[in-house]
Amino acid sequence: MSKNTKSGLLDIDLEDASGKVQQFIRKYVVELKKDGALVGLSGGIDSCIVLKLCSDALGKDNVLAVILPERDSDNTNMRDAVRFAKELGIKYIYKKITPVLWMMGVYNLYPPSFLFRRSTVEKFVKKERNKISGILKKDAYLATLEGGSNKQLCKGEAFYRVKHRLRSAILFYYSELNNLLYVGTSNKSEWMTGYFVKYGDNIADIMPVISFYKTQIFNLARYLNLPSYVIEKSPSPDLIPGIIDEDMLGVSYEKLDLILFGIENNYSLDKIMSISNAEEADESRVKEIVEKSEYLRKWPIALQ
Amino acid sequence: MSKNTKSGLLDIDLEDASGKVQQFIRKYVVELKKDGALVGLSGGIDSCIVLKLCSDALGKDNVLAVILPERDSDNTNMRDAVRFAKELGIKYIYKKITPVLWMMGVYNLYPPSFLFRRSTVEKFVKKERNKISGILKKDAYLATLEGGSNKQLCKGEAFYRVKHRLRSAILFYYSELNNLLYVGTSNKSEWMTGYFVKYGDNIADIMPVISFYKTQIFNLARYLNLPSYVIEKSPSPDLIPGIIDEDMLGVSYEKLDLILFGIENNYSLDKIMSISNAEEADESRVKEIVEKSEYLRKWPIALQ
Repeated sequence: MSKNTKSGLLDIDLEDASGKVQQFIRKYVVELKKDGALVGLSGGIDSCIVLKLCSDALGKDNVLAVILPERDSDNTNMRDAVRFAKELGIKYIYKKITPVLWMMGVYNLYPPSFLFRRSTVEKFVKKERNKISGILKKDAYLATLEGGSNKQLCKGEAFYRVKHRLRSAILFYYSELNNLLYVGTSNKSEWMTGYFVKYGDNIADIMPVISFYKTQIFNLARYLNLPSYVIEKSPSPDLIPGIIDEDMLGVSYEKLDLILFGIENNYSLDKIMSISNAEEADESRVKEIVEKSEYLRKWPIALQ
Repeated sequence: MSKNTKSGLLDIDLEDASGKVQQFIRKYVVELKKDGALVGLSGGIDSCIVLKLCSDALGKDNVLAVILPERDSDNTNMRDAVRFAKELGIKYIYKKITPVLWMMGVYNLYPPSFLFRRSTVEKFVKKERNKISGILKKDAYLATLEGGSNKQLCKGEAFYRVKHRLRSAILFYYSELNNLLYVGTSNKSEWMTGYFVKYGDNIADIMPVISFYKTQIFNLARYLNLPSYVIEKSPSPDLIPGIIDEDMLGVSYEKLDLILFGIENNYSLDKIMSISNAEEADESRVKEIVEKSEYLRKWPIALQ
């Protein structure tokens, strides 16, 4: 087993992991009587790695990639998605969902960004985020998890979440129409921190990489020789211009994953700080995030 | 406690049940910091009863009903939905999602029904259903649960499921925009039999009536004085013209609920048959349905 993370604590046997994921995908294609697999491709590392593993597991002709850009998507990500599908020789559907979102009234909430340069939009987003933080006296991500009736917060949430939920409805549609297994791309770091859209990108038929932290996904990507244009960019949900993961989560993935590992294993604060090299403030914020996102990892709360 | 079902086995204290549901709704409005509740209203008994209970729990001014008809919706149901919201004095949004479904390409799968009389469409649906049953040598509902690559089956599933998934995305959108608790309407009979669209109508923020069998919902509806135009019609998902619940489930709700009650309590076949007055074939079919729908009641299957 090669040492693939700095501290070594999150090292996994990459060959073994990749084999198990492929086996898992094959198993559920058979069990659920599907003819292949479908992956929603965003050009980010998670969806690219899942596409690659589906292709390795089933053969490239039995996999369909679906790329669903909208007005605010990063063009680079969309180009990367197409390029990656082409390089793997996997057939893909490229369908702009912008007209559907217009028809649903979603873009009426914010000025159409195609009239502006992306940098202008990113500046606007940053200002909005700071405004919310200022009013609520907490960072934007915790504010999102906690909810409440702040108008700007509600508007922002409705705006970005509907995009992933619409995507998921369309991905199920294509998968059912073509009898394909809809393979999801959630990882453990985003699952534990609630960094997903509830019933948006956390749903699918199966979740083959949800047991891997994001840093392990990176190592797996290097092991599987994913191209640098996929690996070497800042992870982002690509829902609102200028919002990237590490900015929202407030700590690097390297630290985050070690803190999460510590929380998962009931380590003491001291031990978590020593393995992760994180500040006490980081540790307590991550703990708060994990606790406050608990309801997102459940089915609708049911009266028993 | 009044005797409200024939056998008495499914009798519940209706006053107590209604009070608990209202308490539950109020609790989560407070806990999740919402300003009120939102219900997707179909004109059917489940959504009408949930709307009434939200109104009783929070006051009518704190509830929003959202009615989302599409090309194939039953006009009577839509009229009933509007009428019921008006009678309760609850504000409502009425938004046709037909243009959105057109734009998504969904109606291209089947000829536009508005060109035909509803009875013609219903005949067409019945023929399609019989064709599928004939080819797969099993009834259409079990065929749906089992899946497989039959083209007609896949097309039909993609067609009807996307409607509820789109609705759910829109209901979350309105609830987040207005900081309302999205209150779901699943009941126990449909939950146990998988008679819902996975990640369509089985998602919401909370599920207040999921512990009640459909026959209990009916009794609750009578207790709450719901109008006869809501109570006295055959329950239907209203996704495809001519498809009604008892037809798909293959047995009356009265029998179904008693069989489900028996399965839940690990009764012997003999005992189930004696309490439900059902045939052995009904019992074994319901058991098969409960087993084969197990995967629908879970989050995406995860590789651990």
